Amino acid sequence: MRYVSFRRPDGTPSFGRQDGATIIELATGATPSLKAALTDGSLATLADGATYAAADIVLLPVIPDPAKILCVGLNYAEHVKETGREQKAHPAIFVRYADSLVADGQPMVKPAVTTRFDYEGELAIVIGKPCHKVAATDALSHVAGYAVFNDGSARDWQRHNIQFTPGKTFPGTGGFGPALVTVDEIDDLGALRVQTCLNGDMVQDQPIADMIWDIPTVIEYISAFTPLAPGDVIATGTPGGVGDKRTPPLYMHAGDKVEVTIGAIGTLANRIIDEQ
Amino acid sequence: MRYVSFRRPDGTPSFGRQDGATIIELATGATPSLKAALTDGSLATLADGATYAAADIVLLPVIPDPAKILCVGLNYAEHVKETGREQKAHPAIFVRYADSLVADGQPMVKPAVTTRFDYEGELAIVIGKPCHKVAATDALSHVAGYAVFNDGSARDWQRHNIQFTPGKTFPGTGGFGPALVTVDEIDDLGALRVQTCLNGDMVQDQPIADMIWDIPTVIEYISAFTPLAPGDVIATGTPGGVGDKRTPPLYMHAGDKVEVTIGAIGTLANRIIDEQ
Repeated sequence: MRYVSFRRPDGTPSFGRQDGATIIELATGATPSLKAALTDGSLATLADGATYAAADIVLLPVIPDPAKILCVGLNYAEHVKETGREQKAHPAIFVRYADSLVADGQPMVKPAVTTRFDYEGELAIVIGKPCHKVAATDALSHVAGYAVFNDGSARDWQRHNIQFTPGKTFPGTGGFGPALVTVDEIDDLGALRVQTCLNGDMVQDQPIADMIWDIPTVIEYISAFTPLAPGDVIATGTPGGVGDKRTPPLYMHAGDKVEVTIGAIGTLANRIIDEQ
Repeated sequence: MRYVSFRRPDGTPSFGRQDGATIIELATGATPSLKAALTDGSLATLADGATYAAADIVLLPVIPDPAKILCVGLNYAEHVKETGREQKAHPAIFVRYADSLVADGQPMVKPAVTTRFDYEGELAIVIGKPCHKVAATDALSHVAGYAVFNDGSARDWQRHNIQFTPGKTFPGTGGFGPALVTVDEIDDLGALRVQTCLNGDMVQDQPIADMIWDIPTVIEYISAFTPLAPGDVIATGTPGGVGDKRTPPLYMHAGDKVEVTIGAIGTLANRIIDEQ
């Protein structure tokens, strides 16, 4: 199944199931959001409501309001190498906030204070069941599904000091879309490639199998130090090819189009605009 | 004024004003929490409700559920020096989650997976008005008040990789209390000393004036990259003297008592227990 959060033509936030170019609304008064449907466990049994043409609704971020968004840094060897950093025994984990998210098709906002706005195509995991201190062997049973993430980064602010969060959570910088694709839809996740295109040129292209810490290991590690709840998001790290490490560097500017595709999970496409 | 969040003798979460050993309840149906009273701007005008003896209630963290808790690392030169790190032009900012907070008088929980559980006495700022991209000169008008913080740190997990959050947000590790002390109560904040005692021995003792980035500057910096809301918390960094940098190192273990005092703002006292 593919689930999307969206605004109805009348502006009301809602969510539903996507079937090709049709959206079947699933929101109810008791379960108004995808996060609520994951939390109360009703997602698979909600009755079909109104249908909309995909062209008539406006997508919201897959989960518009996750309580926690944890990002894995340095999870592909090529990216570790291009940053010149040492590979460690555990993943680097930092945080972004929900008010930094934008949906597929919405603009990503280049902060006025950065001159080094960069893309990071990533696989996002959406948590489906509460999970604290789970073993890797049991981790996938806590996952609702996957989505595509663009961890838009103000590289100057990320490197002001040794902690990344200042460059990683500006409003409008985190692309998260288009849909939540349930785990059963994907046969061989590792074979899917994270592919980022900037203005049509492929700038990142690496299979998920190249992750240093795979998804069960990442969930075991994160859930060891913080409890995860339905709707929480883990952005699992970006492959090599980021703009900041190119010669010459390649940054995003107003008018650029950035697209991240992860096979059957879909394509997240965003135009860049300047902060107003 | 001094405001506290607490559980009434019947277990209901509430909040009120503290007058010595008396707590005057201020919660209403429309404004059930201190965060709600900051958000709707009603804090100074709420009618007095029931009174309780301080001994009859159980304190909660000053704000039990801040949406954002941003922590400043490396904000006192002595601490920068003891960590062997370089002083940068901007502060280091990382995040902890609200589910890691404990109140004054409640146990701080040593995670089972760490062998290096350390204290960090700090001044906490509680945001009183929405603030995004504020100038330092206007920053203090967005502050509701101050409290005492103990940024309990699992040093091994903090240093697993280059981002601190894994060691900084284990459940039960962030002491936050005892009260929200409004800005007008403090004449000369810089003169107050952050003093941490472990089992009665003073292990940190430095004036707030020694901060590298003062409070207005920290608020200007953080609000430049993320919007702050009433009830959000900034933990402003710890002075020199952390246990991990001592020879031999000094860690916290079950049964230890850790107290952080910041002059008239008060004392945050916690016993250490092992995670169950």
